[in-house]
Amino acid sequence: MSKFAETIKEKPAVGWLVFLIALAAVFLLGLLAASITEKRAEVATLYSNKKVDIDGIEPRSPLWGLNFPREYDTWKKTREMDFRSKHLGNMVEDVLDSRPNMVVLWAGYAFSRDYNAPRGHAYTIDDMRATLRVGAPGVGENKDMQPGTCWTCKSPDVPRMMNELGIENYYQSKWSELGDQIVNPLGCADCHDPKTMNLTITRPALIEAFERRGMEITQASPQEMRSLVCAQCHVEYYFKGDGKYLTFPWDNGKKLTAGMPVEKMVDGMSVEAMEAYYDDPALNYKDWVHALSKAPMLKAQHPDYEVFLMGTHGKRGLSCADCHMPYKSEGGIKFSDHQVMSPLKNVAAACQTCHRESEENLLRDVYDNQDKVLEIRDRVEAELAKAHIMAKQALDAGVSEERLKPVQQLLRQAGWRWDYGVASHGGSFHAPVETARILSHALDKSLQAQIEAQKLLTAAGVVFTMPDISTKAKAQTFIGLNMEKFRADKQAFLSKVLPGWIEEAKTNKRFIDDTQAADMVE
Amino acid sequence: MSKFAETIKEKPAVGWLVFLIALAAVFLLGLLAASITEKRAEVATLYSNKKVDIDGIEPRSPLWGLNFPREYDTWKKTREMDFRSKHLGNMVEDVLDSRPNMVVLWAGYAFSRDYNAPRGHAYTIDDMRATLRVGAPGVGENKDMQPGTCWTCKSPDVPRMMNELGIENYYQSKWSELGDQIVNPLGCADCHDPKTMNLTITRPALIEAFERRGMEITQASPQEMRSLVCAQCHVEYYFKGDGKYLTFPWDNGKKLTAGMPVEKMVDGMSVEAMEAYYDDPALNYKDWVHALSKAPMLKAQHPDYEVFLMGTHGKRGLSCADCHMPYKSEGGIKFSDHQVMSPLKNVAAACQTCHRESEENLLRDVYDNQDKVLEIRDRVEAELAKAHIMAKQALDAGVSEERLKPVQQLLRQAGWRWDYGVASHGGSFHAPVETARILSHALDKSLQAQIEAQKLLTAAGVVFTMPDISTKAKAQTFIGLNMEKFRADKQAFLSKVLPGWIEEAKTNKRFIDDTQAADMVE
Repeated sequence: MSKFAETIKEKPAVGWLVFLIALAAVFLLGLLAASITEKRAEVATLYSNKKVDIDGIEPRSPLWGLNFPREYDTWKKTREMDFRSKHLGNMVEDVLDSRPNMVVLWAGYAFSRDYNAPRGHAYTIDDMRATLRVGAPGVGENKDMQPGTCWTCKSPDVPRMMNELGIENYYQSKWSELGDQIVNPLGCADCHDPKTMNLTITRPALIEAFERRGMEITQASPQEMRSLVCAQCHVEYYFKGDGKYLTFPWDNGKKLTAGMPVEKMVDGMSVEAMEAYYDDPALNYKDWVHALSKAPMLKAQHPDYEVFLMGTHGKRGLSCADCHMPYKSEGGIKFSDHQVMSPLKNVAAACQTCHRESEENLLRDVYDNQDKVLEIRDRVEAELAKAHIMAKQALDAGVSEERLKPVQQLLRQAGWRWDYGVASHGGSFHAPVETARILSHALDKSLQAQIEAQKLLTAAGVVFTMPDISTKAKAQTFIGLNMEKFRADKQAFLSKVLPGWIEEAKTNKRFIDDTQAADMVE
Repeated sequence: MSKFAETIKEKPAVGWLVFLIALAAVFLLGLLAASITEKRAEVATLYSNKKVDIDGIEPRSPLWGLNFPREYDTWKKTREMDFRSKHLGNMVEDVLDSRPNMVVLWAGYAFSRDYNAPRGHAYTIDDMRATLRVGAPGVGENKDMQPGTCWTCKSPDVPRMMNELGIENYYQSKWSELGDQIVNPLGCADCHDPKTMNLTITRPALIEAFERRGMEITQASPQEMRSLVCAQCHVEYYFKGDGKYLTFPWDNGKKLTAGMPVEKMVDGMSVEAMEAYYDDPALNYKDWVHALSKAPMLKAQHPDYEVFLMGTHGKRGLSCADCHMPYKSEGGIKFSDHQVMSPLKNVAAACQTCHRESEENLLRDVYDNQDKVLEIRDRVEAELAKAHIMAKQALDAGVSEERLKPVQQLLRQAGWRWDYGVASHGGSFHAPVETARILSHALDKSLQAQIEAQKLLTAAGVVFTMPDISTKAKAQTFIGLNMEKFRADKQAFLSKVLPGWIEEAKTNKRFIDDTQAADMVE
C-alpha cells in the first residue's frame, strides 16, 4: 500500500478533502471554459459603444462604420480584387476582349460596347459611371441612354431617392438626373435596418414579386433573409413599360407560402418559366431588336438567386451569406465577413466548415464542373453568333422578315438561354447540371436557327460568308460601332460632367469619407 | 453526515470495497459490450463450418453457397426485378419500344433488332440465350452472328473454358460452340478466389489493359478491387482483329502506378481519349457500317467504371461495392449484400450511411439530375436519327460516298458520344455534368451533320422527307429488318437447339441446382 493510501486509511477526512478539492478544481475549470467561449459581454459592448445613432435612411456607410468597425472594415475590402480563380482569371478584365463573339450576340444593345467582369460592392458607383453602357450624357449631343432604374442596384442612395421622389418617378428619371444624388456604393443601408441591424429588404421589386405570388416578404425566415437581401439585385429582372418599372418575371410560379420548400419556389424561376412570362402575348416583351438578325431579343440579367436555388446548396437550405460571407472571429466577437467574394478566395471558412476535404480536392471539383460547362458555352457563342450573321445575310439578300420569323424566334430562344446560363454569376458552380442543360438547349436552338437560315440563304442563291470577328475590335467594327467616338465622349463625360456631380454631393455631405464621418460624431 | 458516509468514516475498508466493486462492475460492463459487438467467434465459425472444399475454377455457385449461405442467398435475389426507379421504370422492358429512334441509330447492327433493359446477374445466361442479337444458330440456314468473346461477361464458366481452350481459341470460338459449356450465370467464381475468398480478377482483358499502362493489377488496393472486379465487365471494350480478342481501349492514358489518384487514371478513359484510340490510323476501328448513312460507326459498350471514376463518388475513392453492395448484418455476421442493384432500391444502407438526409431529398437529387440529362439525350436521339436518314437520302440521290465523308465522320463522332453517354449504366447519376457535356457534344455533332447533309441534298435537288419511325415496328421496317423471321427463328432455337445444350450441361453436372449441390457434399 502506498504512503498516500495509508494516510487515507488512517485519516479518512483527508480522503474526503482530496475528493472535494478535485470537485472544486473541476468546477473552476468549467468556469474558465465558459469564460473563454462566452461572448455576451463583448457583444453587449457593441451596443453600448454605439458612437452614432442612425435613423431613417442613411446611405453613408462610413457613419455606420463607426458603430460596426469590423463589418465596415471587411466591406471596404471589397475593393481588393486580388483574388483570381481559374475562370474568373480572365473575367476580371474586358470580357468582350476574350470572347469577341459576345459583341455579335449583343449587337444593337449597349452590352456590345462594353462588358467588364464584375467587381466588388465598393465599386458599384465607379463602374457604373465609367461604363460605356450608360453613354456620356451632357457631352455634346449625347443624351441619356438609360433610365433612373439603372441605378437601382448600385447604391443605398436609391431607397432615399425613391422615398424622396416616389418609386415611379424615381424609375422614370433620366439616369443623369440622379448623378449627383446617387453617390455611395452599395453598402450597409442596402440590407440592414439601422435600428435593429436586422436584415431588411429595401428594394420594392423583390417585395412586389413575392406579393404577386401571394407572400409577404416579411414572412421570410432569418435564414431566407440571408439570401433575400442578395436577391434584391442578384436576380433576373426587366424594366416594365414606358415607366421603366423594375420587375422580376417570376409570376409563372406556384403561390408562395412561408416555409415553402425551395423546389416549389423555383418553379417560376426556370429558364422556361421566365421565357413563358416574357412570351405571354399580353406582354410580348423584348429587351431589344438585334442589329443584325432583327430578332426580338431578351437579355438575361444575372439570375444568380434563381440558379442557386436549383443547385445542391440551395436545395439544402443554405443561404448566399453562408458561403459568400462566412463567419470570422476577432477577440470574443464573431461576425460575418462583409468582403462578399468568391468563396474560393476563402475555402477554409466558406467550404471546409462543412466539407472535410482538402482545398485542392474542393477546388478541383469546382473547376472540373466549370470546365465542362464552359466547353458547351464556348460552342454556343460561336454558333449563335454565326446564326445571327446568317440571318443578316438572308435579310441583306432580300428575304422578307416574315419568312425569317422562325429563324428570329430560334435566335431569341437561343440568346435567352445562352444569356441565362452565362450571366448568372457562378451558375456552373451553383447548379452545374441545370446550367449544362440550359446551354445545351441554347446550342440546340442556335444550330436549328442555322439550319433554317441556310434554307433561306440557299433559296435566295446566297453563299454564306463568315466575316472576321476574331477580336473585339473587328467584331465591333462588323456590327457598325464607332468605338472611338464612344470612348472620346466618355472621357469628356468623366473629366467634365462627373466632377460636378461629385462636387455637388460632397458639398451637401451626401458623400463623406471616414474622417468626415468621425468628425460628424464628435 | 449520512449513514453511509459515517460507515466509511468509521470503517475505511468499506469505502475501498465499494470502490473496488464499482471498478469490477464497470469492467464486467466492458466485457459485455465487447461481447455484443465482438463478431470474431461467428466469423470463425464461417471458416470452420465450411461444408465443401472449393479448389480451382468452380463455376457452380450453388456449391459456394453451401459455405457462404448469406452471400449466396442475396446473390439469388438478383432474380428479383421488383424495383422500379423513376427512370428505370420504362427501362426494364423493351427499350426500343419506348425510344424507337434507337432502331435507326443502330441500323445495320444487331442492337437494332433487340435491346432490353439490363436485369440482375442471375439472368445473364437466360438473357443472352434469348436475345435476337445472337441470332438462332443451328436453325435452318442460321449461322453464328457472334463469336465466343460475346460470352465473356456472362458466366464463371468463361475462365474455365479459357483455361481449357486457351484464351485466343476461346475468343475465336463460335458463340454456339460454347452453348453447352457456358451455362452458369455470373456468380461467385467471377470475382472470388476460392481459397481465400479474396477478390480476384478472372478476366484477362482488364489485367492486360492495366499491363499496357505499366501496372500489375495485383498492385491494386483492396478498396480498388471492390471496383475492379466490376470493371472486368462494366467498361468500354471492343473485339480486336479477326481473333475477336477482347480489348479495353484505355491505352491513351498516362502510365499507371499503384496508389495513383483517380483523376490520373481516367485520363485514358474519357470519351475523347477512347475515340482517339479508335481513330488511330494504325487501328482505324469501326464496330459496324451504318446501314443508312454508310458511316463507320463505333458502338460504346457500358463505360460504367470509367464514368463512375469521373464523378463525385469516384473521385472520393468510393468503390462500386460501397453503394451497390452495402453491408448487411445478420446475427453477429456483417456481410456484403450480393443483390447487386440500383442503390435507390436501398437508400438507407446505400446512401444514408454517409448522407444524413431524407430518402425523399436524396431521390429528388438523383432524379432531378437524371431528368435534366435525359432531356438532352432525347434531343440527340431525335436529331441523330434524322441526320442518318438525311445522309441516306443523299446517297440515294447519287451523292458520292467521297462527298458524304465529312457527314459520315460527324455521324460517327455523334454516335460514339451518344452511345457513351447513354450506354453507361447510371452515368447521369455517377457523373451528371460529364454526361451532360458528352451528350451536348453529341447533339452538336448531330446538328452539324444535318447542316452538311442538307447542303448535299440541296445541291442534289432533293427535298428531304422524314419517314415515320414513331414506333419500334415502323422504325425496324424502315431500316429493312424482317423481324417476323428473326423471332420465328429464335423461337425455333429456344425450343429445339437450346434444350440440347441444357441437357448436355446437366448430364455432365456442369449446371446443378441447390439440392444437387447439397447431395454432392453429403
